[in-house]
This record gives sequence, C-alpha cells and structure tokens, in this order.
Amino acid sequence: MEYNEFDFDGYACSIPHQTKEKILLGHGSGGKLSHDLINNFFLPELKNAAPRNKDDAAIISLNGRRLALTTDSYVVSPLFFPGGDIGKLAVCGTVNDLSMVGATPIALTCGYIIEEGLPLEILKRVVHSIQETALEAKIYIAAGDTKVVQRGGVDKLFINTTGLGYISEGINISGSNAIPGDVIIISGTIGDHGIAILSVREGLGFETDLQSDVAPLNHLVKDMTSAGEIKVLRDPTRGGLGTSLVEITQQSNVTIEIYERDIPIMPQVRAACEMLGFDPLYIANEGKLVAFVAERDADKVLSIMRKHQYGQSAAIIGRVIEAGKPRIYLKTIIGGKRIVDMLPGELLPRIC
Amino acid sequence: MEYNEFDFDGYACSIPHQTKEKILLGHGSGGKLSHDLINNFFLPELKNAAPRNKDDAAIISLNGRRLALTTDSYVVSPLFFPGGDIGKLAVCGTVNDLSMVGATPIALTCGYIIEEGLPLEILKRVVHSIQETALEAKIYIAAGDTKVVQRGGVDKLFINTTGLGYISEGINISGSNAIPGDVIIISGTIGDHGIAILSVREGLGFETDLQSDVAPLNHLVKDMTSAGEIKVLRDPTRGGLGTSLVEITQQSNVTIEIYERDIPIMPQVRAACEMLGFDPLYIANEGKLVAFVAERDADKVLSIMRKHQYGQSAAIIGRVIEAGKPRIYLKTIIGGKRIVDMLPGELLPRIC
Repeated sequence: MEYNEFDFDGYACSIPHQTKEKILLGHGSGGKLSHDLINNFFLPELKNAAPRNKDDAAIISLNGRRLALTTDSYVVSPLFFPGGDIGKLAVCGTVNDLSMVGATPIALTCGYIIEEGLPLEILKRVVHSIQETALEAKIYIAAGDTKVVQRGGVDKLFINTTGLGYISEGINISGSNAIPGDVIIISGTIGDHGIAILSVREGLGFETDLQSDVAPLNHLVKDMTSAGEIKVLRDPTRGGLGTSLVEITQQSNVTIEIYERDIPIMPQVRAACEMLGFDPLYIANEGKLVAFVAERDADKVLSIMRKHQYGQSAAIIGRVIEAGKPRIYLKTIIGGKRIVDMLPGELLPRIC
Repeated sequence: MEYNEFDFDGYACSIPHQTKEKILLGHGSGGKLSHDLINNFFLPELKNAAPRNKDDAAIISLNGRRLALTTDSYVVSPLFFPGGDIGKLAVCGTVNDLSMVGATPIALTCGYIIEEGLPLEILKRVVHSIQETALEAKIYIAAGDTKVVQRGGVDKLFINTTGLGYISEGINISGSNAIPGDVIIISGTIGDHGIAILSVREGLGFETDLQSDVAPLNHLVKDMTSAGEIKVLRDPTRGGLGTSLVEITQQSNVTIEIYERDIPIMPQVRAACEMLGFDPLYIANEGKLVAFVAERDADKVLSIMRKHQYGQSAAIIGRVIEAGKPRIYLKTIIGGKRIVDMLPGELLPRIC
C-alpha cells in the first residue's frame, strides 16, 4: 500500500492514497494505520488530552498517589470462541492494560451495547464470564451502562471496559525505560488468540484443538515485580508481538535483537500460519506479556514466571543491543537476519 | 404491555410475556424495563460488583479520598442534531454523571467504535466537539481506544466515555438523602433534548427551531454546593424527569408532590408532545438537573442557579411531603392530582 503525506485541515496526516477520506478496517488493526490515526488525527485534535505516554494506560497523579486509567471496546466476532468469550476478553484486556504500567487493578466499568433481539441467555453467559474473570483478577465491577440498538444497528453485542488502578511506590514501568543490556522475556506461546478466533470464523474455519490464551495477567506481574527490576511491560494484543516491540523500540529509542528459534509457538499456530501465509509475530495474543528486564534480574524473573499458571512457557527471546536508533533485528532459525516493522494494515478484523 | 413474573434460572425477572427470552429496545430506555434488567439480571449475576448505590456514579474510597467512576455508551442517531452531536453528548453525559454525586471531574476516557467507510471528516467534527466540550468542563481526556467494524456491523459511530472524579470533603449527595421538607428544583426547561432529536429523526421530522439542551453541568453544581446544602442531584436523561423522580423517591423512601404549572417547558416542546401524544415528564434532557435542597437554603440555591448560564430558567417544582412510602403526586394545571410512575417501555430509541 502506498502512503501519501497530505495536509488535512492543517494537520499532517498519513493516510492511504486512494481512500484518504474514509475510515478503513486497518485503522482498527493496532498496527501502522492505527498509529497514524492516533498520532496524526486524534492527538493533534485533542489539545486537552493528557500528555500521551504511549503506554497501555494513562497515569494520573492525585495527592501524591499515582492512578492508572485505561479503556477498550470489544467487538470480537464470534462472541464465543475456544478458550473464552467477549466478556472474559473485556475484563482481561482491561486488567492487562492496567498491569502493563505496573498498576494494581481497583475497579472497572462495563458498557454494553446490545442488538435488539439478542437472546437473554447469550447476555447471561457473557455477564457470568465477566463475573468469573473479575473474581479471578480481584477487580471490582463498579458501574455499568446498557444501551439497546435496533436490529441491524449493531452486530449482537459490543462491550466497553474501562479500568482504574493504583501504582505502588517504587514501581516505574514504561515503554520508554529500555536500555542496552535489558533482557526481553515473553511469558508464553504467541498467536494463540488470533488463530483460535480464526478457526471459528465463518468461512475460514479449519479443525484445531487450539484455545485462546485470554487470561488476566495482574497476579503474574505482581510476582515479577517482586522478583526483579521490570523496565517495560506490554501485552501484545492487536498487532501482535512484532508491533509491540516496534512501539517499545520507538519509545525507548533502542535497537533490539530477537531470536526466532527462542520464541515459543504452538505447533497448531505454526501450521495455521504456514497454511494461511501469516507471520505469527503479528497475530494477536490476549494472555501474554513481553517484558524488558534488568540484565542482573532476568534469570530470577524468568524462574518466577515459569512457576506461574500463565507463565509456564516463559522464555528469553532477545536483548537490547544499543541505544540511539529504534530498530528490531530478527535472527531467523535458518541463520538469516531481518528487520521487523509494524503490521502495516489489517490482518484479521474484530479479533478483540 | 402485560408483564409476567417468571423465574429465570433462579432469578426473579420481570420481562414482557411474549418476548421473555430476548432483549427489547425498552431494556435500553432508562425506564422500567432498564431497571428490571439491572435489578433482576445484572446485579444478581455480578456478585463481584460494588454495592450498588443506585446513584449516577460509583464511589470508591482510596486512602481516605473518595473517587467517583461512571460509564456511558452513546449510540444517538443521528450523530449531529440541533444544538449538539454525539461527541458533545458523550462528554456532557459523563461529566454530568460525575457531577450528580458531587464529584469534581478529573479525567475521562473515550472508546470509539467506528463503521468501516465512515468519512474521516465526520470523525474529525466529532473529535473536535469532544475537545471543545472537555475544555469547557475542564476535564482531561486521559486515554482512548479505536475499533473499526466492517460495514453494516455498527451504525456509523458509537462512543463510550468513562469518567473519573474526586469528591471534596463535606460533600454528601445521594438519591437516598431526601427527607420531608426538602425543596425540589429543576435547573430549566424539560424535554428539549428528546424533542430536538425527534425533530431530525428520519420519518418523524417536523419543523422546529428547538435545540438540544446538551451541556456540562459541573460548574453549575459547584456554585450550588457553595450556596447551600444539596441533598440529591440527578440529571434526567433517558426516562426523563418522571423516571428520575421515581428513582429518588424509591431510594429515599419518601413521598413528594410536584406542581405541573411550575415545571418549565418550551412552547415547542409542549406543542410537539401534544401533537405526538408524549408526556414531557418522560422526555430526555441532557443539560438539566433536578436537585433536592434543604428547605432553609432553597431560595439562596435557586438564586445562584439563575445567575448561571445553564440555570437561568431554574424553578422550584415541588417538595418532599412525607417519609415511609415512595410516591409522586403531580398536581395538574387544571387542579387534579395524579400519581407519576416510571416510563414503562421505550419512548424513543437511541436518544443518547
């Protein structure tokens, strides 16, 4: 796709050439187009926005206490998929975004947009799942809102969850903290969520026993921050591990190298990616995190992670090698070396 | 419509007889069906929910500081209407919900769900409006999220806003605080928003110069709380003034009387209601509040309100007459007396 820099009512805005006046599915991908929309459209317009730290949650200081606030809407299709559903996804997504700035979750809000005619039984299963996941994550459901839209005005059910947390003293986690020497750890196999969704997507179905990895990671993060100095955390959702690593290298202005052979991937995910021509680096995860850890603490943190339910397959996958230039080198299994960039467009719409 | 009490997997649930297994438009009306859905479906299911205070925002105590948290999704159709648009509506709705528990707004989050193909110019106008309204209300936009759904999966644009505020010491505002003697004040004319939307709704259009009253009320509330003891505040949005008053009388377990002749109504709203057979008591407002004020402070509070941009037509409309029974008597203009109940079903879908 060719990009064309043009002036949009005074704001420089990089939008695909042929369709520069309309929203594309790719604007919701979490990849390059999403970043363009945020950086070149929303941020210039929102002069009243808090200074954007580009982390997963905003941090607000109130009487010396740091609060974290994050929002996400969920439009996943189908509503129920192997390993989870839109309700579990919504709670985990918000809990994880809080966790990625080192915040302890306090409370979340749920906004439901429901299509007229939705069977109450469907809503009941989703709300039950929200309840179970919130209990596991130990986050309170503080407020809710329900809107009903006429048939055809919304596809079944969308959910917004917004989370509030607090950051304990001594915790300082941000995408801008990476320095040379830091060790890069992934908490487990990548691509499980995206391929699980794909396996049940109408018209794309294929047989697999794969389940989404959707899970709340706050307890894992708590164990990790007790075990060593965690510089950066990110959950590689839309856009996948590749896009998350690009974001971090840009925020910290560092070059990293990652080793393809060390990145854990389920055989089913590898097979599906080969069959469909996808790069697992860009497939969404919903229960994984990537951490940049101080070199001296890396082994201790890894060992703690592996004892945790959601970190059993944790692995060191790379290192920060130098400062001054945001770049990712991937050392391939066959011995080559290539540069990793953001997901340019949309791989799989409505993945979350 | 006939209602039928039946047992829904163990929860008593009042749902219309013929359609007991599906979500109806009325479940999003803000009236009786919405209350049933919350009280009989969501609350029993959500064991992990914060104790529901039935006010417009949840209150969370953190180190002795009271925080308020509230969420709303906006699905209004059309996106632009006389006097406002979905962006202004979303910011005002959330600012007002914080204000109704006496909270000072700190920050809000915006979640956008956008239909593929939406012209960027539309989004730009909405985001600009969000920015302008947030500036007026002095609330920061802390975090955002953008999802894009394929054509037909969502009707143009939905927005969720979630707001965080803090409650200063000495402020204690809740729907459960009303006692006999309290004076009931409305901040201005009722029904403007609902009728303004109706006037541009496809197929229902009629000529009027009426504008929606959508406005942020936090500065008005600040003036009011400085002027006297405010017991209860509520912004009568979906469900209108009638439903808000029913909620308050139930929370406080009091009987009130209100005087029809004293309720301010624009002639255009009155005319539209007569033409269409609507009761203005159930028409939505988006820039009005109803306050229950300590008797001794009522005149002072009213006088302060009338000096404010959004309270110029404020009026005393009633009184709490006794405790022990939740009931509303409306003294009609022609000298009669009738009981006011909640809006039973749906008057006008997608009003907010």
